[in-house]
Amino acid sequence: MTRYKIIVEYDGAGFVGWQRQDNGLGVQQALEIAIGAFTGEAATVFGAGRTDSGVHALAQVAHFDLSADLSVYNVCEAMNYHLKEQAVAVLNATIVDEEFHSRFSATGRSYEYRITNRRAPLVLQRGYSWQQRGDIDTDAMHEAAQVLIGKHDFTTFRATNCQAESPVKTLNRLDVERHGEDIRVLVQARSFLHHQVRNLVGTLMLVGRGKWTTEDLAAALAARHRTAGGETAPACGLYLSSVSY
Amino acid sequence: MTRYKIIVEYDGAGFVGWQRQDNGLGVQQALEIAIGAFTGEAATVFGAGRTDSGVHALAQVAHFDLSADLSVYNVCEAMNYHLKEQAVAVLNATIVDEEFHSRFSATGRSYEYRITNRRAPLVLQRGYSWQQRGDIDTDAMHEAAQVLIGKHDFTTFRATNCQAESPVKTLNRLDVERHGEDIRVLVQARSFLHHQVRNLVGTLMLVGRGKWTTEDLAAALAARHRTAGGETAPACGLYLSSVSY
Repeated sequence: MTRYKIIVEYDGAGFVGWQRQDNGLGVQQALEIAIGAFTGEAATVFGAGRTDSGVHALAQVAHFDLSADLSVYNVCEAMNYHLKEQAVAVLNATIVDEEFHSRFSATGRSYEYRITNRRAPLVLQRGYSWQQRGDIDTDAMHEAAQVLIGKHDFTTFRATNCQAESPVKTLNRLDVERHGEDIRVLVQARSFLHHQVRNLVGTLMLVGRGKWTTEDLAAALAARHRTAGGETAPACGLYLSSVSY
Repeated sequence: MTRYKIIVEYDGAGFVGWQRQDNGLGVQQALEIAIGAFTGEAATVFGAGRTDSGVHALAQVAHFDLSADLSVYNVCEAMNYHLKEQAVAVLNATIVDEEFHSRFSATGRSYEYRITNRRAPLVLQRGYSWQQRGDIDTDAMHEAAQVLIGKHDFTTFRATNCQAESPVKTLNRLDVERHGEDIRVLVQARSFLHHQVRNLVGTLMLVGRGKWTTEDLAAALAARHRTAGGETAPACGLYLSSVSY
């Protein structure tokens, strides 16, 4: 068997999320169907991050094993050919040794959350950014966000149905940047809890609106209860941007 | 009558172009229908640039007259409310004096052309960028492009059905920039000929591919014949990015 590592871009709007679901097509399943179409093999595709329904990926990483001995070029080309009706593309494929696991070998995951701060409805960014009207103080958001950096119990920012054994995670980066009307929240950690990034963004918005201070954010973290945090920002603004090994 | 100047964003994919056509909805017409819906007035909307079918706008400028005395805030809000089913939004409205004309008062128009240089099919940029596989030398494109700066007869880069009286235009800026796989061609002039930007981009691609030198580009300009130029780049990569007065 040969293990292939692939880097994948997808538009989350076209899928029920990374994983297969009863109510529609998962990205994982779309990739497995494409692999089956040119190899005849029923490969299982493992992803680094199990993105939710509607979440996009600029560079998700996945792996699978094939008994056929195919070049990485042919794997890329054949997968993209069979994925041409789907909003997913394979950007790159490499052969890795059997020790490599897209999920368990990952040492870091980066997400980007896109916000458009303007009054007018979104047109070119519709479905690809979270629209927020009115004044947002992104410097205050960035400054407050730094209290969340490091190893903490992130129960406040964890979906109530989160399956992770421990709510303790180490946040390495949480930057809030503004470029005109475009606001980007850049987050990096070894791994995340379910809805953690979207809950962090929704809560930071309270700081951006001047409703919360840095101390309020620190108190919310310390409360260790989901109800102490802000709303869950919508899936459409979230992008899995890279996975490191 | 009060004259309103509006700044408009639209997704060109949803329209037959700026102007009304028999085969579908023009952006101009969509705006006029929205104005009629809340004023009962049959205003004519004049645009600064008559973008072709499929061309997007980040900030098209237009004007129209109303006998109703409405605040710019209300005009914006009401137009966006009535445009909510369309891929167009009014970003800003101001009241201008009757001397102002969106098209004839304009002193400059800027366009941005987006190219994605990668092998994998486009996903998040599908329909919003021109995909180009293989090596492209953007430094060579930028350098060659500078021979086109200034006042020239641009017949080589003009659509054969172009209605302009003269093929002479003054190009103020033609920059080619690369940011990873994203290539941007930034163009500025007082006004443009029909298909001029798309023909410039399609021709510059010959330089990027190493098929043409700067001298070949200069010779094509001097030839003053459309057949001396390269292909017309697709509409989906083109954005009207600003209009100055």
